[in-house]
Amino acid sequence: MPHLTIEYTDNLAGFPEAEVLQAVNAAVASHPQIPEEADLKTRLVRVSRFEIGTAPANRAFIHAQLRLLSGRSPEAKKELTTRIADVLRRLAPRPEGVLVQLSAEIVDMDRPSYSKERL
Amino acid sequence: MPHLTIEYTDNLAGFPEAEVLQAVNAAVASHPQIPEEADLKTRLVRVSRFEIGTAPANRAFIHAQLRLLSGRSPEAKKELTTRIADVLRRLAPRPEGVLVQLSAEIVDMDRPSYSKERL
Amino acid sequence: MPHLTIEYTDNLAGFPEAEVLQAVNAAVASHPQIPEEADLKTRLVRVSRFEIGTAPANRAFIHAQLRLLSGRSPEAKKELTTRIADVLRRLAPRPEGVLVQLSAEIVDMDRPSYSKERL
Repeated sequence: MPHLTIEYTDNLAGFPEAEVLQAVNAAVASHPQIPEEADLKTRLVRVSRFEIGTAPANRAFIHAQLRLLSGRSPEAKKELTTRIADVLRRLAPRPEGVLVQLSAEIVDMDRPSYSKERL
Repeated sequence: MPHLTIEYTDNLAGFPEAEVLQAVNAAVASHPQIPEEADLKTRLVRVSRFEIGTAPANRAFIHAQLRLLSGRSPEAKKELTTRIADVLRRLAPRPEGVLVQLSAEIVDMDRPSYSKERL
Repeated sequence: MPHLTIEYTDNLAGFPEAEVLQAVNAAVASHPQIPEEADLKTRLVRVSRFEIGTAPANRAFIHAQLRLLSGRSPEAKKELTTRIADVLRRLAPRPEGVLVQLSAEIVDMDRPSYSKERL
């Protein structure tokens, strides 16, 4: 069930897409709260139209959103954003003169209405 | 007000986009909790950068997210994800050797701050 | 921390992307609840696969989603969607014969698990 979406701005030249996907999935799927590796569905979104703040500065961002069925403890959630941020911090390009912001959030999904199956 | 987003991975060749959009809108808009058909705004997102789990397997997913103003009953929400899943199960391609996961979630939108108008 | 995503359907020819990004960021970042302008990360998403309702009509939409760390008052949230809608109403194209829907929502992000840093 976990759904992970990682956005990154396209001024982060050389963002290692395949490596990020594999490393972040390994980090998240090995957490005890993620019982089945096959359930982790991760998307990478390259953001080409964006604006960060209002000052005329050179800025970029990477943002991860992990959606989980509700019921995880605050501790488990914090561990998961930490694991994701650790991977992204390690692999993110740092272009000269660009301020790069990295963030990660957890979203609780409504459990009673969630529908899931394998076709 | 309902906002529906359906993502599908691009290894689902032949995904019938127009047919899915029409069928899913018909199924959702005819539910008693959706008073005005014109309010249902559905996007289809073809996902090209993704990774499912960690095992070297051939996997795909389809995921629907329906955003509603808060206040619907748990029963109505479950009916809506069931309707959406029914359409997607019927129309989804099933490529040989690919494990396809299908999921659907409801998200409550904050009603007091929601803004809506017709231009 | 605020994350703003603005979607618009691609039948809104001439949508002024750069102008919208700058105007909406100016409007949001100047709100007292947004302490640091550099934190506002706005994406514009051009939606090319969509279906609005079920009737054979010519329809378009613009939808904004602002994600904030939880804890803002209902009044502040309403002010923020109002500011966003004001900008979009002013700048949105109004193609002849097309019904354009404009909406904006606020989403509370889970504060304890949120992770944020500058690289």
